[in-house]
Amino acid sequence: MSDPTVIDMTILDSTSDDQYRVTVLGIGRMGTALGRALLAAHHRVTVWNRTPSKADDLVDMGAVRAETAAAAIAASPITIVCVADYDGVQNVLGAGSALLPGHTVVNLTTGTPEDARAMATWVTGRGADYLDGAMMAVPQSVATPSAFFLYSGSQHAFDHHRHTLDALATSHYLGEDPSAAELWDLALLGSGYAALTGFLHSLALLGTANVSPSRFVPLVSRWLSGLTEYMSELAREIESGDYSTGVSPVGMNQVAVENLTRLSEDLGIDSEVHRPLQALLGRHVAQGHGHESFSSLFKLMQKRP
Amino acid sequence: MSDPTVIDMTILDSTSDDQYRVTVLGIGRMGTALGRALLAAHHRVTVWNRTPSKADDLVDMGAVRAETAAAAIAASPITIVCVADYDGVQNVLGAGSALLPGHTVVNLTTGTPEDARAMATWVTGRGADYLDGAMMAVPQSVATPSAFFLYSGSQHAFDHHRHTLDALATSHYLGEDPSAAELWDLALLGSGYAALTGFLHSLALLGTANVSPSRFVPLVSRWLSGLTEYMSELAREIESGDYSTGVSPVGMNQVAVENLTRLSEDLGIDSEVHRPLQALLGRHVAQGHGHESFSSLFKLMQKRP
Ligand SMILES: NC(=O)c1ccc[n+]([C@@H]2O[C@H](COP(=O)([O-])OP(=O)(O)OC[C@H]3O[C@@H](n4cnc5c(N)ncnc54)[C@H](OP(=O)(O)O)[C@@H]3O)[C@@H](O)[C@H]2O)c1
Ligand SMILES: NC(=O)c1ccc[n+]([C@@H]2O[C@H](COP(=O)([O-])OP(=O)(O)OC[C@H]3O[C@@H](n4cnc5c(N)ncnc54)[C@H](OP(=O)(O)O)[C@@H]3O)[C@@H](O)[C@H]2O)c1
Repeated sequence: MSDPTVIDMTILDSTSDDQYRVTVLGIGRMGTALGRALLAAHHRVTVWNRTPSKADDLVDMGAVRAETAAAAIAASPITIVCVADYDGVQNVLGAGSALLPGHTVVNLTTGTPEDARAMATWVTGRGADYLDGAMMAVPQSVATPSAFFLYSGSQHAFDHHRHTLDALATSHYLGEDPSAAELWDLALLGSGYAALTGFLHSLALLGTANVSPSRFVPLVSRWLSGLTEYMSELAREIESGDYSTGVSPVGMNQVAVENLTRLSEDLGIDSEVHRPLQALLGRHVAQGHGHESFSSLFKLMQKRP
Repeated sequence: MSDPTVIDMTILDSTSDDQYRVTVLGIGRMGTALGRALLAAHHRVTVWNRTPSKADDLVDMGAVRAETAAAAIAASPITIVCVADYDGVQNVLGAGSALLPGHTVVNLTTGTPEDARAMATWVTGRGADYLDGAMMAVPQSVATPSAFFLYSGSQHAFDHHRHTLDALATSHYLGEDPSAAELWDLALLGSGYAALTGFLHSLALLGTANVSPSRFVPLVSRWLSGLTEYMSELAREIESGDYSTGVSPVGMNQVAVENLTRLSEDLGIDSEVHRPLQALLGRHVAQGHGHESFSSLFKLMQKRP
C-alpha cells in the first residue's frame, strides 16, 4: 500500500513536518528552558528575542534564529510567547499581521484573567487561535515530572498541538474561557504562598528550641501531603453545604490557633501571619458556628458588604 | 537447644508477656481508636475511663476493664494517657502512687510545651519514665499509613516500648526534652492551618468562575506536594544565611501577591488572609531586600522589640 522508504523519510525528517515546527518568542529564563525542551523533543524550533544574544545558546543547540518576530511567527503553525508581561506580548506580536487563520498563539506569559481575555479577543480577531497558559514550574523544572502547565482557550488548538505542549510539562486543559489558566494560576500561587508563610513561621517557632529547618522539612512535607485527603473532604462539605461534621470543629480549631499564637508570642515569635485565621475563627464561633467543620469558614471568604 | 513447645506457647500466648501488656486511660474518640489498634496488634489491653460505658465497645473486643485508674496502671508496664487536657491527665494519674520505677507513662494528650515539661517533672519525680506524645492523626486514621505520632522524653522508654508505639502509627522520636513533641505538634498544625486557610481562599476565588472545589483538589495537592523540594531549598538558605538566590526573589513574590489580593478584591473575595504576607513583603522590599530569596522573610518572623 505505502512505500516504506517514504515512511522512513517521514520519521527521520520529522522536523520538516508541520506538527514539529514551533516558534518561541521571548528567550528569557523560561523561554530558554522551553526552547531546550522542544529541541529535545525533536522539534524544529524558530526563536526570536528582543535582545538577540540571549538566544545564542539555543541557536548553538540547533534552534533557528529569525530576524524579526513576524518572520519567526511565519515559520511555524504555532507560536509560544513567553515574555515578562502582557505589554511585552503586545509588543512582540506587533500589529498582528503575521497571525493568519490556522495559526495558534500559545501565550505562557503571566498576567491577570482580564489580560488573558483581552489578548484572546485581539488574537482571534486577527483570525488565529488563542490558547492562554500558566506555567507551574521554574526554569530548571521544565520538562521534568514536577512541572505542570495549565491551558485555557481554544480546545481545538490544545488538542491539535498537544504533542508539542506535552514536551514542556504535564498539560492540563481548563476550558474554553481563556482567562481560566490565569485564575487557576493565582489560586494555586495563593495556596502555595499561604503554606510557605506558615512554614517560615513554624521554622521560627522551632528555632527557639534550636531545631534546624532541614529537620522539620520531612515531617512538614508528610503532614502537608496528608492534608490532601482532608482537602477532598472539605471540598465535599462545601459542595453539599453540610458543615455538621464532628472531626475537626471550628471551636477546636480556635483553641489550637489560640495556643499557637500565644506560644509564639511567649517565645518572641511574631504571630501576625496567623491573625487573620484567628479572627475568622473567633468571628465564626461568636456567631454560633463553633460546632461546624473548618470548611464552613469558606462562607466568610466572601467580602462583607 | 530450646523446647519448641515453649516457643509455640510464647507466640500463642504473647498477651501474657510484659512486652504485650498496655493500659489506656481515657477512652474518648482517640482512646477508643488507640485501644482498637493495640488489640489488633495482639496486646493485652487494660482500659479505664471516667465514664465507664464509653469503654464498653473495647471490652467487647477483648480489652480488660479496670475498676480504678490506679488498678489500670498497675496492670501493665506502660500506661498511655489520652484525655481532653492536662488537668484531665493530672486527674487520672491521681496522687501518682501507682507509678512505680520501671513503669512508663506515655502521654498523648494535647497541651503546650510547658504542660509537657511540668508533667515530665511530676511523673519522673515519682520514679516512672515519661514520654510525651503528639498524634498527627484523626481517630479514623490511627494505625493507617497516613498517621504519625511524635514522641519526646525518655529515649529508653521509647526504645523499650517501640513495638507497642508502632502499633498506633509511624513513630518519630524527637529527643530527650519532653516538650519537643508539643512544640513540633504546634509547628505542624500552624503550617497545616496556613495551607488550609489559603486553600479556602483559593476555592472562593475559583468559585467566582463556578469552578467546583473538588476540581481544584487534585491540582492544589500536586502543587503543594511539589513545594516540598522548594521547602528543602528554603531550609538550606536559612541555615547558610545566604539569601542571594535568583529563582524567586521577594520582589517577584510581592508582585504576585499584589495581583492575587487585587484580583480577589475585584471579584468580591476578602483577601485579609493574604495581608500579613503582603505586609511582610512590602516591608522587606522597602528595606532593600527585593532581590533576596523568599526564605529571607524568615528573619522578619522574630518579634520586633
Ligand atoms: N522564572 C520563573 O520561575 C517563572 C515561573 C513561572 C512563570 N514565569 C513567567 O514567565 C514569564 C517570563 O519569565 P522569565 O523568568 O523568563 O523572565 P526573564 O528571564 O526576565 O525574561 C523576560 C523576557 O521577556 C522579554 N521582554 C520583556 N519585555 C519585553 C518587551 N516589552 N518586548 C519584548 N520582549 C520583552 C525579555 O526580552 P529581553 O531579553 O530583550 O529583555 C525576555 O526575553 C513571566 O511572565 C513570568 O512571570 C516565570
Ligand atoms: N480527635 C482528634 O481528631 C484528635 C487528634 C489529635 C489529637 N487529639 C487529642 O487527643 C486528646 C483526646 O481527644 P479525643 O478526641 O479523644 O477527645 P474526646 O473524645 O472528647 O474524649 C475526651 C476524653 O478525656 C476524658 N476526660 C476529659 N476530662 C477528664 C478529666 N478531668 N478526668 C478524667 N477524664 C477526663 C473523657 O472522659 P469522659 O468520657 O468521662 O468524659 C474522655 O475519655 C485531646 O487532647 C485531643 O486534643 C484529638
